[in-house]
Amino acid sequence: MADTKEIVVEGVEALTLNGKTEEAKEAGAATTTGAATDDDVVDPWTVTSTNDGGVDYEKLIKRFGSSKIDDELIARFEKITGKPVHHLIKRGLFFSHRDLHSILTLKEQGKSFYLYTGRGPSSGSLHVGHLVPFFITKWLQDTFDVPLVIQLTDDEKVLWKDLKIEDAIKMGRENAKDIVALGFDVNKTFIFNNLEFMGKCPAMYQNIIRIQRCVTFNQVKGIFGFGDSDIIGKIGFPAAQAAPALSSTFPFIFGNRKTACLIPCAIDQDPYFRMTRDVAPRLGFPKCALLHSTFFPALQGAKTKMSASDQNSAVFLTDTPKQIKNKINKYAFSGGRTTVEEHREFGGNPEVDVAYQLLRFFLEDDAKLEEVRVAYTKGEMLTGEIKKLAVETLTPIVEQHQAARKLITDEMLDKYYEIRPLKFGS
Amino acid sequence: MADTKEIVVEGVEALTLNGKTEEAKEAGAATTTGAATDDDVVDPWTVTSTNDGGVDYEKLIKRFGSSKIDDELIARFEKITGKPVHHLIKRGLFFSHRDLHSILTLKEQGKSFYLYTGRGPSSGSLHVGHLVPFFITKWLQDTFDVPLVIQLTDDEKVLWKDLKIEDAIKMGRENAKDIVALGFDVNKTFIFNNLEFMGKCPAMYQNIIRIQRCVTFNQVKGIFGFGDSDIIGKIGFPAAQAAPALSSTFPFIFGNRKTACLIPCAIDQDPYFRMTRDVAPRLGFPKCALLHSTFFPALQGAKTKMSASDQNSAVFLTDTPKQIKNKINKYAFSGGRTTVEEHREFGGNPEVDVAYQLLRFFLEDDAKLEEVRVAYTKGEMLTGEIKKLAVETLTPIVEQHQAARKLITDEMLDKYYEIRPLKFGS
Repeated sequence: MADTKEIVVEGVEALTLNGKTEEAKEAGAATTTGAATDDDVVDPWTVTSTNDGGVDYEKLIKRFGSSKIDDELIARFEKITGKPVHHLIKRGLFFSHRDLHSILTLKEQGKSFYLYTGRGPSSGSLHVGHLVPFFITKWLQDTFDVPLVIQLTDDEKVLWKDLKIEDAIKMGRENAKDIVALGFDVNKTFIFNNLEFMGKCPAMYQNIIRIQRCVTFNQVKGIFGFGDSDIIGKIGFPAAQAAPALSSTFPFIFGNRKTACLIPCAIDQDPYFRMTRDVAPRLGFPKCALLHSTFFPALQGAKTKMSASDQNSAVFLTDTPKQIKNKINKYAFSGGRTTVEEHREFGGNPEVDVAYQLLRFFLEDDAKLEEVRVAYTKGEMLTGEIKKLAVETLTPIVEQHQAARKLITDEMLDKYYEIRPLKFGS
Repeated sequence: MADTKEIVVEGVEALTLNGKTEEAKEAGAATTTGAATDDDVVDPWTVTSTNDGGVDYEKLIKRFGSSKIDDELIARFEKITGKPVHHLIKRGLFFSHRDLHSILTLKEQGKSFYLYTGRGPSSGSLHVGHLVPFFITKWLQDTFDVPLVIQLTDDEKVLWKDLKIEDAIKMGRENAKDIVALGFDVNKTFIFNNLEFMGKCPAMYQNIIRIQRCVTFNQVKGIFGFGDSDIIGKIGFPAAQAAPALSSTFPFIFGNRKTACLIPCAIDQDPYFRMTRDVAPRLGFPKCALLHSTFFPALQGAKTKMSASDQNSAVFLTDTPKQIKNKINKYAFSGGRTTVEEHREFGGNPEVDVAYQLLRFFLEDDAKLEEVRVAYTKGEMLTGEIKKLAVETLTPIVEQHQAARKLITDEMLDKYYEIRPLKFGS
């Protein structure tokens, strides 16, 4: 899987889609990616928007052909699980889905399913945004008591980045420590990296071959924008991300059962699973269900391009409290006015304010968040104050994470990687 | 690997190359397959010729850019090994090579190399032509005392044919029994099938990714004629056939050594290894050396299309002596004249006579073969007589093979498949 993307809004680059011209992009409307009628570009490798507010998610749902998570679905979710939905769902940060109703129906019928998510390990240290899909995944696992498989696509990173096999594997393990530190139940969680798991479980390669037999170059061209000058590794890779959505990839967990699969991920990963959903029924498997998140904003806000090599573009999980404070104070894009007087008079704009966006993701208290939104919008709360709150909210989360991660030994990690049965409800 | 091809010479089909028109074929001259200035089509899936004598191998050497096995090379070969070359080499049935001189130099220097060959298991029973590359491989192994790896490309057959994973694996094992029956030393021979080995040895997938990172779709388009409507499995597959030419694919045999590799195969497999030779140095490995055979003639001769499902197109290793006799008498294309009188007067043509071609492959006695050639050319020997000799030559070979194969148990076969060190000279 690609990284959880930070929003990038640019005037110039949004005119191209994977190096193609605007015309080519329009022509792409006939492909499976659907019509691209606005200037947002969303695929597993590029997320850009020309709009100040970032990607237009309403339009994206239409373009991708997914469904909005509406009040009715949330109500059904809460009724069936008997508890409130996670604040990331309630606040629309997980905003789109495919077949979530089917998963809820399974739960109603007392049947089981499994969760599948992943990460592309392109750097050793994660930023706070990388945690978002794992927060919701852990919450879903706890709520539904189901097994979870986590794929580290180190092969993808070798193919796309200038990374050595050995380094990608190492980064994957470092990332896995961050994931494990969130408290996933080892009895219900299997973590694997493609570059090693492929050589330990024949079912994985066999399913990749089954999938690769169902998909043509024309199709991946349409879905992912691959071209003739792309390496053949990229062209074949989507099958490696698709395979874990078929339960037979993990015979040691699911045996012969064709178990349904729910995938929480950022919406830029949807192309992989549109392809998977097309193939799965042809192989006798249910289509995977999906739960899509929005993108995590870069500190510099909507007008600055994120840079993985730029330590100042994000709060990293390795940052000290001082670094967090400095980064947010210095770099977090403000929706406030240029002077305190103007701000008091006209109010701030939380929609583009990165400190406010961070609070939407990480401040669990709904009442407090609404209070902040109203006060900031009215100009009662100043930029310095909302940044201070963001620092106060993020710092303990990062500190707790660092403390938890310190306790993860290689032996503990190995247990998650071990090929073994998982605890499985039905 | 694709099957050892029988020669197919057709007037109509030779005009197309993988479904493309003659123009497209000419345009293909600019690709890495080189100029196709005659009507021979040779790639891993198609072997056709419009010439009565079958494929023009002199032209093929030019087109592929390989080297002819000439008298000088044979003399050096015999000097270094201290014994005569195999009759298949002496008679020009292995006629072309790449870097065979380098392999001989290694031998001179007391350094080692390994042999790599393979088979695509598309049917449970082999015909006698399938044995040819294994005859020479066994002879090379015995002569040089080197380890051998044999790849069964069951994944290829799943991707190209309408075969189930399970059936392809089963066929591979049946084929492996035929291979093992030729007497390969279990201490020096490792047999593996991709659909299972991939899931047992992470180095295999890791090398595939390394190779797939070096090759673009444009390149496989040029080398193999793949198109946009081809499945992505086909596009990625060449890397699976290339990987065993890198010794690091077998860490349990070669450790960290970068050992040179010699590949005996039919020349239709050369495109795979042209690609491999392009990639290997970029990954820090020596280019694999190659020893190319001609194609094995179909019984019906140069004007009839071979059919894998047509039991009468070839002598199968499961045929009874009666079947062999009937098939050769009834179907083997004759280079003789239409009447005995004409034959006595003008003589026969051994070049197109399938019985004579069978003798070239299987009759080891050089003097006897030359005697037959002269007598048949002069008309002293009749078609019935040369066919009788072919039957008498082939029958004991097939009978001995059947007897040897009967003794191969699953347990014996498993030993060849076992991941383990091999005996290795230096």
